[in-house]
Amino acid sequence: MRLFGARITRLERGLVEISADNRADLEQQDGFVHAGALVTLADSAGGYAALTLLPSGSRVLSVEMKLNFLRPAVGSMIRGRGRIKKMGRTIAVCEIEAMMKQDQKWVICAWGSQTIYCIRN
Amino acid sequence: MRLFGARITRLERGLVEISADNRADLEQQDGFVHAGALVTLADSAGGYAALTLLPSGSRVLSVEMKLNFLRPAVGSMIRGRGRIKKMGRTIAVCEIEAMMKQDQKWVICAWGSQTIYCIRN
Amino acid sequence: MRLFGARITRLERGLVEISADNRADLEQQDGFVHAGALVTLADSAGGYAALTLLPSGSRVLSVEMKLNFLRPAVGSMIRGRGRIKKMGRTIAVCEIEAMMKQDQKWVICAWGSQTIYCIRN
Amino acid sequence: MRLFGARITRLERGLVEISADNRADLEQQDGFVHAGALVTLADSAGGYAALTLLPSGSRVLSVEMKLNFLRPAVGSMIRGRGRIKKMGRTIAVCEIEAMMKQDQKWVICAWGSQTIYCIRN
Repeated sequence: MRLFGARITRLERGLVEISADNRADLEQQDGFVHAGALVTLADSAGGYAALTLLPSGSRVLSVEMKLNFLRPAVGSMIRGRGRIKKMGRTIAVCEIEAMMKQDQKWVICAWGSQTIYCIRN
Repeated sequence: MRLFGARITRLERGLVEISADNRADLEQQDGFVHAGALVTLADSAGGYAALTLLPSGSRVLSVEMKLNFLRPAVGSMIRGRGRIKKMGRTIAVCEIEAMMKQDQKWVICAWGSQTIYCIRN
Repeated sequence: MRLFGARITRLERGLVEISADNRADLEQQDGFVHAGALVTLADSAGGYAALTLLPSGSRVLSVEMKLNFLRPAVGSMIRGRGRIKKMGRTIAVCEIEAMMKQDQKWVICAWGSQTIYCIRN
Repeated sequence: MRLFGARITRLERGLVEISADNRADLEQQDGFVHAGALVTLADSAGGYAALTLLPSGSRVLSVEMKLNFLRPAVGSMIRGRGRIKKMGRTIAVCEIEAMMKQDQKWVICAWGSQTIYCIRN
């Protein structure tokens, strides 16, 4: 996250967005943002989304995540979004997305799911 | 990849490994390497593994990937490995792993699968 | 499908639902419907959803699917739903769900994603 | 399982196989075994594989599963295999496969991963 200069740009119960400016060093040879950068933001947003529904001081661990890459990841900004689909006692399931800002519009470039292990405080 | 100082450390038909030194800026607050760094190396290794089985000048796109995070990602080096399970005409399926070097031993921290779209030259 | 007595109960462009009565032989020892039955309906619904966006006579193949099991699958009816998230030229990505009817309400028991290979006519 | 006439044909610590004869009612219109039948056997084998590493009387729940479909599922018999990759205290990660017997040879038709929640006795 420090790596990206990312910041939380939306925070609701069960929904978090993290955004960063796109930078040359996030891009591959072909000018697309690397899958790993999309995943980093989406995965982080998912973890924070779970934390919004847990007691203060709780911790979360990613058990697994899956992303489909829908469109080329080009644009001036990059954003990850996590939205909790199901919060259980120890397992949360989260919808995760990565978006790019293209011509003033946010476009979904990757979409998928994440399983989170919750260590309640 | 430039971001990581990563280099290809193993290259066989259908199997590629990419390795990098761990660095403070790949780590989260808690000292673990971020999931996104693991994914970047694993996803890249998978793409290169597909390229080893394609005609020179071919291109590959990640359609989707899924990783289970098996163990805390701590250690002095980080490595991604991709191994082709099935190479079709346009779709390749790849086993992907991310490893960390801990006390001179490589330990698998994330394991999963990737679907690759192949644009043959 | 013949196995289940399933029928298409909703058909729109990019969205298909398939429903069946729950039956003793779909259940496991513990009275829950088996994961495989949920997957069968969800996977089929996804494939049909893709077909609604393709020229008549086209064919589809499941490349991969992932489902998170959110709740115990108990109830009087079972339903799979597929909704296309992205239709490309050869690859479609579909959101898939399996639901159970419990006390006159449909409850989502499994949720995930599917990659579909489209052979256009 | 009752539905399939399936039986456990291999049982080791962390590895279970379940096999069944192929039957007309497992097949789709095109003569391929339906994805759901493959998933049922693979998912069940994964759950049993986890049980082999747990105290007697423990229970398991599928948290999620992902399968890539590698080859057309045709043949005289069908088999699911689960092999534990990582057994944690509450979370097990399992490699799952579905195979078909074709001309006396077992061919892997689907391959993937499963996350299992373990309720230890």
